[in-house]
Amino acid sequence: MTTALHSRPGRRKNLQEVSLLEGPMLLLRSIRGFRTNQSLIWLATVPLALFGLSIFTFAAKAGPGLGDLTGPQAATFLADNLWLFIATILVIFMNAGFAMVEAGMCRSKNAVNILAKNLFVFALAVTAYWFIGYSLMYGDSIAGGFLYFGGLFFDADPSGAFECAAAGDTGCLVPSVDFLFQAAFAGTAATIVSGLVAERVKFGEFVIFAIVLSGIIYPISGSWQWNGGWLAELGFIDFAGSSIVHSVGGWAGLVGAMLLGPRIGKYVDGKAQAMPGHSMAIATLGALILWIGWYGFNPGSELAMDEYVAFVAVTTTLAAAGGAIAATVLSTLTSGKPDLTMIINGILAGLVSITAGCGNMTFAGSWLAGAVGGVIVVFAVAALDAAEIDDPVGAFSVHGVCGVWGTVVIGLWGVDGMDPGPAGIGLLNGGGLNQFLVQALGAGAYAIWTVVTCWVAWSIIGGLFGGIRVSEEEETQGLDIGEHGMEAYPDFASAK
Amino acid sequence: MTTALHSRPGRRKNLQEVSLLEGPMLLLRSIRGFRTNQSLIWLATVPLALFGLSIFTFAAKAGPGLGDLTGPQAATFLADNLWLFIATILVIFMNAGFAMVEAGMCRSKNAVNILAKNLFVFALAVTAYWFIGYSLMYGDSIAGGFLYFGGLFFDADPSGAFECAAAGDTGCLVPSVDFLFQAAFAGTAATIVSGLVAERVKFGEFVIFAIVLSGIIYPISGSWQWNGGWLAELGFIDFAGSSIVHSVGGWAGLVGAMLLGPRIGKYVDGKAQAMPGHSMAIATLGALILWIGWYGFNPGSELAMDEYVAFVAVTTTLAAAGGAIAATVLSTLTSGKPDLTMIINGILAGLVSITAGCGNMTFAGSWLAGAVGGVIVVFAVAALDAAEIDDPVGAFSVHGVCGVWGTVVIGLWGVDGMDPGPAGIGLLNGGGLNQFLVQALGAGAYAIWTVVTCWVAWSIIGGLFGGIRVSEEEETQGLDIGEHGMEAYPDFASAK
Amino acid sequence: MTTALHSRPGRRKNLQEVSLLEGPMLLLRSIRGFRTNQSLIWLATVPLALFGLSIFTFAAKAGPGLGDLTGPQAATFLADNLWLFIATILVIFMNAGFAMVEAGMCRSKNAVNILAKNLFVFALAVTAYWFIGYSLMYGDSIAGGFLYFGGLFFDADPSGAFECAAAGDTGCLVPSVDFLFQAAFAGTAATIVSGLVAERVKFGEFVIFAIVLSGIIYPISGSWQWNGGWLAELGFIDFAGSSIVHSVGGWAGLVGAMLLGPRIGKYVDGKAQAMPGHSMAIATLGALILWIGWYGFNPGSELAMDEYVAFVAVTTTLAAAGGAIAATVLSTLTSGKPDLTMIINGILAGLVSITAGCGNMTFAGSWLAGAVGGVIVVFAVAALDAAEIDDPVGAFSVHGVCGVWGTVVIGLWGVDGMDPGPAGIGLLNGGGLNQFLVQALGAGAYAIWTVVTCWVAWSIIGGLFGGIRVSEEEETQGLDIGEHGMEAYPDFASAK
Repeated sequence: MTTALHSRPGRRKNLQEVSLLEGPMLLLRSIRGFRTNQSLIWLATVPLALFGLSIFTFAAKAGPGLGDLTGPQAATFLADNLWLFIATILVIFMNAGFAMVEAGMCRSKNAVNILAKNLFVFALAVTAYWFIGYSLMYGDSIAGGFLYFGGLFFDADPSGAFECAAAGDTGCLVPSVDFLFQAAFAGTAATIVSGLVAERVKFGEFVIFAIVLSGIIYPISGSWQWNGGWLAELGFIDFAGSSIVHSVGGWAGLVGAMLLGPRIGKYVDGKAQAMPGHSMAIATLGALILWIGWYGFNPGSELAMDEYVAFVAVTTTLAAAGGAIAATVLSTLTSGKPDLTMIINGILAGLVSITAGCGNMTFAGSWLAGAVGGVIVVFAVAALDAAEIDDPVGAFSVHGVCGVWGTVVIGLWGVDGMDPGPAGIGLLNGGGLNQFLVQALGAGAYAIWTVVTCWVAWSIIGGLFGGIRVSEEEETQGLDIGEHGMEAYPDFASAK
Repeated sequence: MTTALHSRPGRRKNLQEVSLLEGPMLLLRSIRGFRTNQSLIWLATVPLALFGLSIFTFAAKAGPGLGDLTGPQAATFLADNLWLFIATILVIFMNAGFAMVEAGMCRSKNAVNILAKNLFVFALAVTAYWFIGYSLMYGDSIAGGFLYFGGLFFDADPSGAFECAAAGDTGCLVPSVDFLFQAAFAGTAATIVSGLVAERVKFGEFVIFAIVLSGIIYPISGSWQWNGGWLAELGFIDFAGSSIVHSVGGWAGLVGAMLLGPRIGKYVDGKAQAMPGHSMAIATLGALILWIGWYGFNPGSELAMDEYVAFVAVTTTLAAAGGAIAATVLSTLTSGKPDLTMIINGILAGLVSITAGCGNMTFAGSWLAGAVGGVIVVFAVAALDAAEIDDPVGAFSVHGVCGVWGTVVIGLWGVDGMDPGPAGIGLLNGGGLNQFLVQALGAGAYAIWTVVTCWVAWSIIGGLFGGIRVSEEEETQGLDIGEHGMEAYPDFASAK
Repeated sequence: MTTALHSRPGRRKNLQEVSLLEGPMLLLRSIRGFRTNQSLIWLATVPLALFGLSIFTFAAKAGPGLGDLTGPQAATFLADNLWLFIATILVIFMNAGFAMVEAGMCRSKNAVNILAKNLFVFALAVTAYWFIGYSLMYGDSIAGGFLYFGGLFFDADPSGAFECAAAGDTGCLVPSVDFLFQAAFAGTAATIVSGLVAERVKFGEFVIFAIVLSGIIYPISGSWQWNGGWLAELGFIDFAGSSIVHSVGGWAGLVGAMLLGPRIGKYVDGKAQAMPGHSMAIATLGALILWIGWYGFNPGSELAMDEYVAFVAVTTTLAAAGGAIAATVLSTLTSGKPDLTMIINGILAGLVSITAGCGNMTFAGSWLAGAVGGVIVVFAVAALDAAEIDDPVGAFSVHGVCGVWGTVVIGLWGVDGMDPGPAGIGLLNGGGLNQFLVQALGAGAYAIWTVVTCWVAWSIIGGLFGGIRVSEEEETQGLDIGEHGMEAYPDFASAK
């Protein structure tokens, strides 16, 4: 759905003549509290620059409209676009889920910081994705399936969608809904990082990283599959983004967590210390909001309204159930009691585990993929602690490890579609080794790309601003006071 | 929409040859913390068994598809399935509503337990309903309108839905969406129980009961009406489940609450002691989530997208408003001040009171049905306390008593449909005694069935595992430590 | 969509013969805790009166149905009504957003009060809007574009919608969905007031004001634009209600806040004292729920499902992002650290700023309108404090000031529609002065109307019941004990 990106090259050329770095640089500095009169000039300059570019008017459109469609065409066009818009809203709602899960699983002295990160990062991700991300992800190929570009500033002419519908195609989305759906995905990747670097990262530095991730790193690798790039050519399957979204978020955060090091007091004599979250109520609420949001994430990735949408919803639901049950049973077996954080992470693990294969798995296969994800997450949390990598909310175990698992499980017991009767394509159900290798290759490619680029990004940001970690004193006192000058719950007495 | 249940009898026969009890028995034991190497064997056995049954591939399908439908057929097919899917998401979201209402109305020392129950039970309910519940509820009659069965493991072939649409019918749902909608209802029934047995029931025992309720007890009695069983034959009306879902949940919980007895210190010298909930913020949030979720529950029960969906939404809204106003006015009159828990329970009472009749009542009739529900809930709470039956969150008053009220009010001032011009069918608007008696019979049948089967179920579970109630010491300390080894709000100091 | 309002004049005439003031007067008194046996008589009288009016049955309908529509007609009819119903649910969900934002930003000792107001007011607003509000807003003109009326008690005959669809029109909504969508808007206006008068207004007096606002004041001025009244005739643009809903709520609350005066201790020697909110977690959740809800509010105001719905969603999203970024950067520049409450209010400011122009602005123009809104809200909060007008949650800065800004910005850089190619209609993009003056006139008209009528309403209510402010003692202790006899968080120790 990239029609609109090419409609007005003239305006975009003009835009690029303006020094595009000036605004962001000032933004960076202002975020770190650097007071400058230049900022005021910037605030006045931007609107003027935009007026000069006549960015407040549209170009003309032509072509068919809703009234030109036949009955079946109108029915599919309207249902497709309505469904995708609803799916978009559900995915955007996931921001609330992430905010509640992450805040609830951290300590109250850092709650404002985590909430602020989640809230602000979505605003930045949408802006960055509008400015350049969507273009990098869904523009025209400029380097053989590895790099795409379609000009700056996404704009939306619905003509192409009507032409598509009038030609009898399905899944003809207007650019606005396609953009918003994709922008919400970009925001998700950034939000996952937030959990991994929680309770010790500086606010401004995190924010800058999130812009880079959602505006550049994520869109580039996303194009490899979802814009028909080299991985799509190879036959890689990642229906809704176990690798493309979740593992990218997980790897990006893992690099951050490793560069930051563990929180003060987390590991004593090689043993992980419990640092329980401050509100299981909002963490549970967040998990249920995420569960709901996943009905936009996975079934929405069908990018059309048809008989498969609900099918994907069932595979998604059963995987979540399998993950919850397996993680709960396993954590009860190993620790004697069912841990609520493990029920939560089991659900999320199940959901991530089916995200790639939600359109390529039977119901039983889905439940089992989720259940194995639920087992994996319990062991992954323990393994990270053994390696003294501090992941406060278990985000890498859920999104990184299960993101990889969800990708490769298709190569184990995936099927080649959602219609009854598809052939098995996995190692264990008659499909041979090929799909498994492609899935592993894709998962590996996302890991390498993300780890390398994010290492560079975190390092540059840290170098520019004197490190990405708050001071020891600030960390002990809590980031809410240090980074935001406020408390999350000022009316309540602390337990200590 | 049971087509899919019969498509592959061969596979199902094979499945039944495996000892189906082995897995669940191990699950039961493992939930109680019984460590065993057998569990590991089980974890390895299940996937292998499933592979042997080739559960990872589908059978072939045939018949028409979306492209074969005419304009009006495609429009209704897509709108019906999209609407039902959205309704399903809304009903699943009610889990968050129940979790927040129940947790908020209980004490903080039991919050983890309540949250864990709500979260985990939905995973179990979906699994149980997929395994057998849907089949018991929507399978083929095997005992004259009283018992149905359609094989184990629901599976989804959309062919039948397209055949239905191609024949010009409306409400042609693909099996996946129908299954998920119904599974969400099954989960609701189980969640209601959670509130009644809160703050004193053992986690594992409750979980087992919830599986039995959502997988067996609820589906069997649900079929009596919604699969065209004996109650449907009699002309019983319960559009969205005042009796079938809410009163069943209420009765099931009431039996649990009576077997458990009241919480320590609840009744002193025959007087109920206040045990205020720990967070009115999340309780209020939960009420509003439930209100929203009810727009899936009631209008979704139209099982199609048509002009009546919004009509049902209006009756639902007005009943909620009536319930809130009546309960608030009454509780202000009786206690001097408007109690927030009574506003919440008034809203929920109004919603339950219209659930059966939301398609068979005028707007004024709906508001009044809700308002009477709001009055009833205030008295019912007092009556239960007088009987020393401890219902910590008022769940029986809301779901049980108003569930019965919502069922019989159709016999008082119901009308025979949603089109303008339907005849009155109630005692008070010209319909005579017949409908009233049928409604009372149905409400009574659900009460008797649920009380008897649940008494048996709770008793067997209690007998197997040494009672369903936690120790006095654990209850005093809080179930969060005892059952889960964690606290909901470890950072905050307790008030005492 | 007012067809239904005129269908049965006979019944309505009868209704008006009953003294309509009797019930409400008793309600008023009972809310203030005035115990009276008359109330019981009232409870018994209303149902009997309703029976006498045969309000429990419908009149007959005629005309076409779903089956009479052609393919394109059925497709648009179903998509339009489904989308509007979903939009309605999203707007109703905003009640949860407002409740969480307002409660989270106030102190814990007043949390029950704020939650109760938000919850109860929606029930009352829906009832009042059903009783008379919808009729005043969408009835027939009785005074040349200034006043409308269509009888008491909205009722819903879908015949007109089918006739509309069969004639080939789009946006043919059944009355039920139109009513519910509009009722949710009425509730929003009332809820905004709640934030401005928080922590010091009496519960019962506020409740009465909310009924008057949502049932009479808001509908009358709403008709000026949305029922094709005098402002619509002038060419005033307010797509989704920056002025009509948000500024009306803001002005209504401002009058209340000024009449009440500031909270005890808020201003000491002319300096505003910090009174931080008690839960940033629920305030952040509320902001995200409101963001989601706005996708019903703005795109839903298209009143049809077409290619513009997602366009409006993108302008809405970008304005929210712009508002968040501008407010965060500015508050960081001025106070040194990014304040979470400013991120929240920046998002809401951006959303309000685009509400009028969401269908009349480019993407860049939308982002900028939101960003300017984010700047405005920071200054407006400071300005109100300088004027010693106490707005505990910043509601006037967000809804009042940005409501006006969102209205006039259309006159600065609005365009004349959503299709590519529309002409600029603002001062700064070639449209001349005309639209700007019309926008300013409209914004001014809503300000004057609301301030005058609300001053009268608050004054009468205060005069009847001995003032609208709680006692000094009650305010110091907290309204939760004083007004409701309960605490929001009884288990937790206070910080003081």
